[in-house]
Amino acid sequence: MLRVGYSANIAPELLKDFPPTVELVALPRDLDHDVEIEVWIPDPYPTRNTAIVPHLRGVKLVLSLMAGTEWIPAALGPHVTICNARGAHNISAAEWTVSATLAMLKHFPLFLDVQRSGEWKRRFEATTEYERVSGDARQHYPPVMLEELTGKTVLLVGYGSIGKEIERMLEPFRVELTRVARRARENPKVHAVSELDALIPGAEVIVLILPSTTESYRLIDAKLFELMQQGTLLVNAARGPVVNTDALVEALQSGRIRAAVDVTDPEPLPEGHPLWKCPNLLLTPHVGGSSPEIARRAL
Amino acid sequence: MLRVGYSANIAPELLKDFPPTVELVALPRDLDHDVEIEVWIPDPYPTRNTAIVPHLRGVKLVLSLMAGTEWIPAALGPHVTICNARGAHNISAAEWTVSATLAMLKHFPLFLDVQRSGEWKRRFEATTEYERVSGDARQHYPPVMLEELTGKTVLLVGYGSIGKEIERMLEPFRVELTRVARRARENPKVHAVSELDALIPGAEVIVLILPSTTESYRLIDAKLFELMQQGTLLVNAARGPVVNTDALVEALQSGRIRAAVDVTDPEPLPEGHPLWKCPNLLLTPHVGGSSPEIARRAL
Repeated sequence: MLRVGYSANIAPELLKDFPPTVELVALPRDLDHDVEIEVWIPDPYPTRNTAIVPHLRGVKLVLSLMAGTEWIPAALGPHVTICNARGAHNISAAEWTVSATLAMLKHFPLFLDVQRSGEWKRRFEATTEYERVSGDARQHYPPVMLEELTGKTVLLVGYGSIGKEIERMLEPFRVELTRVARRARENPKVHAVSELDALIPGAEVIVLILPSTTESYRLIDAKLFELMQQGTLLVNAARGPVVNTDALVEALQSGRIRAAVDVTDPEPLPEGHPLWKCPNLLLTPHVGGSSPEIARRAL
Repeated sequence: MLRVGYSANIAPELLKDFPPTVELVALPRDLDHDVEIEVWIPDPYPTRNTAIVPHLRGVKLVLSLMAGTEWIPAALGPHVTICNARGAHNISAAEWTVSATLAMLKHFPLFLDVQRSGEWKRRFEATTEYERVSGDARQHYPPVMLEELTGKTVLLVGYGSIGKEIERMLEPFRVELTRVARRARENPKVHAVSELDALIPGAEVIVLILPSTTESYRLIDAKLFELMQQGTLLVNAARGPVVNTDALVEALQSGRIRAAVDVTDPEPLPEGHPLWKCPNLLLTPHVGGSSPEIARRAL
């Protein structure tokens, strides 16, 4: 009988689709004796497997609930087969991206302040904020308090499975989408990262959803921030190190751009870091992929 | 030559598509002499036309930049033709609805508090909030910090031009949409308002985008709030009087439901009103239709 060991933190109901010919073995985080299993479903938090690993015997296949599996060969050796959960976070990560983009264009951080203050009239501050941030000097009447995503120019930097999901969720908003990935390709048209300098000035929204690699390390630096037009919204749904944090802080503090980030560098962002207090910023603490559906989709 | 009078608050660039055979006449808010015009484009804020109206002579056609025109026959008599701007707010109002829905499901109000506090670890409060608000008693691992719109059951109450636009923007999220309007019809299936009692218990998100009439006055009352399932998100993109405010305050304070509202009753919401401080609420001060595109679209 095939023995499948799984982190005892995983709800047994998620394993109900394994056939009855499989023996399921719950592995507590503080496992203190050796177990013989062919298949292992580790805890999604790698460090919580530290005590378990030395007790595993006979593992041939690892089913990871996360996309990142770098720690597994280091822990179990090079001869195990590893299946990762690529795709399990596509929907939640793409939803975070669209939600954060809309929340910034709708000035929700300002309106939450207005709500806390309980003063309806403070809504007029949204017009001042719109004019200041966007740099729109046209004479609008009635006054503008919110912006639209519809019709905006969006630069999508990263065109893997989450990038494609973001594109799908942006469809009703008829944005002018420009795709960027490591290498240029056609059908659909994708530009190379090397073309970023030329593409950034035309973007009203820039979405980062590229992998964190040595090539993408601090890709968005002071030079690229300077190329952004007044009021550009930078949305980082990728990884913190893709952006030079000092340059981001400077660009935000100068009032030139705005940003929504789910990831930071360093991460966790330490108390007292200047990014926490930057204006025109929505910062969520690396929660974008979270969803009640994650474990089920991964399994 | 046809004379078109327009509120001097309207940017002249928006009028550039009138043919050269038309004479455009700017009307300042404090107009103090009579003018002869065939066509009038009033200020979008009705009360700002008070001083102008007695000086208008010969008006046959009124081009309103707003959808509501009830004040015009009262001001100019019953013999003028009135064109309203029905549809000009469709995109902005539908975008507000989708944005507010997503912001609540992503717990952005909580995360903005976390951001202000500068404590990364407070993100774990999102799990507590999720469990409390949603009433989801399943054992989730990894812990849930955000929800998804994808796949949710959505009750769309109101199926006019904005309602259809909301439906279009919800498409990528593959929601289970149930439509409700004054009268039932087919293709697509629309239920009658009289069926609300039976439909509300199945809804995870309820969107209100029906007109404010004597029939819809306080349609959403204590009885209907009691029929909502734990954690239902009520999104009011319609008008304040469609909801019984006392019942809304009670339902929010009890922790049973959550809400996002762009409109209130009374409106403006007075300082000190209990709605300002209700939990699980996003309140924006009637800005949902605002956009830099409004005047252009209306004209």
